[in-house]
Amino acid sequence: MTEIEEQIPPEAETEEDVYGLDPKTVAAALYAVEVGDRQRLLDLLEPLHAADIADILEQINAYDRRRLVLLYDREFDGEILSELDESIREEIISVLKPQVLAEAMRELDSDDIVDIVEDLDEPQQEAILDQLEDADRVAIEQSLSYPEFSAGRLMQRETVCAPEHWTVGETIDFLRNAEDLPAQFYHVILVDPRMKPIGNVTLGKLMSSRRDVAMKDILEEVFQVIPVSQDEGDVAYAFNQYHLISAPVVDEDDRVVGVITIDDAMAVLDEEHEEDILRLAGVSDESSISDTILSAARGRATWLFVNLLTAILASLVIDVFAETIDQMVALAVLMPIVASMGGNAGTQTMTVAVRSLATRDLTAQNALRVVRREISVGAINGILFGFIMALVAGFWFGTPMLAVVIGVAMLFTQIAAALGGIAIPMALDRAGIDPALASGPFVTTVTDVVGFFAFLSLASWVLL
Amino acid sequence: MTEIEEQIPPEAETEEDVYGLDPKTVAAALYAVEVGDRQRLLDLLEPLHAADIADILEQINAYDRRRLVLLYDREFDGEILSELDESIREEIISVLKPQVLAEAMRELDSDDIVDIVEDLDEPQQEAILDQLEDADRVAIEQSLSYPEFSAGRLMQRETVCAPEHWTVGETIDFLRNAEDLPAQFYHVILVDPRMKPIGNVTLGKLMSSRRDVAMKDILEEVFQVIPVSQDEGDVAYAFNQYHLISAPVVDEDDRVVGVITIDDAMAVLDEEHEEDILRLAGVSDESSISDTILSAARGRATWLFVNLLTAILASLVIDVFAETIDQMVALAVLMPIVASMGGNAGTQTMTVAVRSLATRDLTAQNALRVVRREISVGAINGILFGFIMALVAGFWFGTPMLAVVIGVAMLFTQIAAALGGIAIPMALDRAGIDPALASGPFVTTVTDVVGFFAFLSLASWVLL
Repeated sequence: MTEIEEQIPPEAETEEDVYGLDPKTVAAALYAVEVGDRQRLLDLLEPLHAADIADILEQINAYDRRRLVLLYDREFDGEILSELDESIREEIISVLKPQVLAEAMRELDSDDIVDIVEDLDEPQQEAILDQLEDADRVAIEQSLSYPEFSAGRLMQRETVCAPEHWTVGETIDFLRNAEDLPAQFYHVILVDPRMKPIGNVTLGKLMSSRRDVAMKDILEEVFQVIPVSQDEGDVAYAFNQYHLISAPVVDEDDRVVGVITIDDAMAVLDEEHEEDILRLAGVSDESSISDTILSAARGRATWLFVNLLTAILASLVIDVFAETIDQMVALAVLMPIVASMGGNAGTQTMTVAVRSLATRDLTAQNALRVVRREISVGAINGILFGFIMALVAGFWFGTPMLAVVIGVAMLFTQIAAALGGIAIPMALDRAGIDPALASGPFVTTVTDVVGFFAFLSLASWVLL
Repeated sequence: MTEIEEQIPPEAETEEDVYGLDPKTVAAALYAVEVGDRQRLLDLLEPLHAADIADILEQINAYDRRRLVLLYDREFDGEILSELDESIREEIISVLKPQVLAEAMRELDSDDIVDIVEDLDEPQQEAILDQLEDADRVAIEQSLSYPEFSAGRLMQRETVCAPEHWTVGETIDFLRNAEDLPAQFYHVILVDPRMKPIGNVTLGKLMSSRRDVAMKDILEEVFQVIPVSQDEGDVAYAFNQYHLISAPVVDEDDRVVGVITIDDAMAVLDEEHEEDILRLAGVSDESSISDTILSAARGRATWLFVNLLTAILASLVIDVFAETIDQMVALAVLMPIVASMGGNAGTQTMTVAVRSLATRDLTAQNALRVVRREISVGAINGILFGFIMALVAGFWFGTPMLAVVIGVAMLFTQIAAALGGIAIPMALDRAGIDPALASGPFVTTVTDVVGFFAFLSLASWVLL
């Protein structure tokens, strides 16, 4: 009971925030580092979860981080490394004394070590692997032999299996006598003599069944087997779609080689979402607010450069109509509105399309219907905003034909935005390119070029 | 074993896709509906998970959906309703015969019924509640009394608790004699005489401990208690941050009233991410590709209207410099480039800021440092792209001073974009407004206005 009280500050249960880290703790820890009061720092960090200590390290600057890690010294826990953002993790590993690092690593499960080691540079990898015992080292090198982002990297190697002919009683006796059960497991995997998995029995079901019941009669209804080479994104998808809690991982001969649990799948789902959001905004998907200034600038420059090319392309379209603009400067004033509205509508449609592809709601089956639907949506909003903008332009510049021109141009652009917004992600997806990453520049090009061209060409035809 | 073989088609284990639904199945089901072959439809859907059947219904059109549901008739499973998208769920409930709906509902756990009922209109709610037995009806009405999106709505009411003084043996005996354990549970919650939770014991630990060990000596190290009124987003955050598997939910007197498991938290996390992505793109967050055309158009019109206002504001800025443009039409050709680059940089920074706020990586502690960092990133990319664009404009129009003007305007705009992109989400967050929802229009206004103003005012000052 004292252990628990140490874990949660007493107010955590009554306060409205389940989040353990408050700004006062961060400030107090910084103060302890400032005055070099080691005992005070230990007292402050001791009740915190490793994830919260990692958050503190991420929130303070590199100078304070270094001082905190050095003062914390041998209390530094391996789990903190697991929880840290990649860029900061490397920084901290280079600050830790070798014996502290070795100690921290020895506490961790093999899948957590793999997770840390796989992101490191060669020399840091070697430094860590050298600290491990031979058996651990071999296990980790074996995990690293699976492709990156595969089920093999994600899985725990420790499984709890039972032969298919066992009864509940035999299984319970086996479990109660087992020496080294995994810290967390939710199912007993039933296997045939060749170690091929046949089904899962939940521990709850095992607990509540009579001893003479056959294990194969109380299998869970839903059962998924994951190939070791499966992409981790597909694994997360399967967990989410089928509400799995754990699933056995099999090698090419269908033998059980590990198990993936829902908490690993949840972490992957979280990362994939993060990636999608950042990619849609044209930010390199490994960026975080703890990157250095230069690497952040580089991570964004790629997409800015692509955007520069599409913007220049749009300007070339405008340049064709330079003479028209010269004769009627109102066109220059109004044309960004047409392009901006097109760009926004395109981004909306594109985002819905990218999400629907990611959740597999948009398939070959319903593609045509969805495209027709998006074009209708574009036409409705095109008529609505074309009409509004025609009124605005009419009152602003007092030229009725200019009002008609901008209204019609808006309608065209909105329809083109809808078509581009849905067709471009679908085409990229079919070509095997991540639509979240590459759709943006194409959609923007379509809406800018169509927007400027429709407006200026109509104007030069009707007005001059 | 036969049960399992029915669950997974034999190729599922060797193929690279864990996803159970393939386009052929959808087409075959549609054909069976077309020819009215009920047995064929049942044979096709029988091996599928409810989530996959829900996906089929979401992918086909409303006419086929109605026919499929009517043909499927009394085989229609309550879990399919649970898995369906909200808009389609309402449609299908109105198609189902009352006795089929009643049967489907009776199969579900109370938390799933709550999840379905809470989204429905009043008359449909009544129709479903009327089908339930009195005890279920009362339980569900009690759940609905908790605020929407609270832990109370999310939790399962069935818990497995044990008194704090029990031993492993006593707990095992209790579990093995219990009549109605929940279908899925992962922890035994240890409670004091007032039903206040003191800690969790995992079933695995229970299995592998000696019978005379005290339960309070094998508590899990990490333990979080969730107040019943907690926002579900915070609950999901806690599960993700602390790698929880299940956590007890307590009322205002700290008594256990339910339990939340990681699969519920994972579903919430998924929804919140979806919401963020759609909100960032200015799409109403309840939209999906199964919305009707009119409701989709309406869901996007709000943000398009806000964008129209900001675009008109930017045009007013251009209008101020109409005379300048009239004297040098190259300005009209180049000015969209400055604004477009600013808009993109602003969106990048804004997205990183919104994500960092959501994951609580951006706090009062590091706010100032992050703002300084973003401005530096903006300045670096401003110098880079200002320089490139100056070269392009210089060669294009052969006017050296025009090159200088666009370069300097780019630099200003990139810095303003960085400042707006980070400061606006932070200010909205502090004001209690969701930054994902409202940042976009403000950031775009800043970048457009600054972009056009910097370029055109510099041009009129330097060039004319």
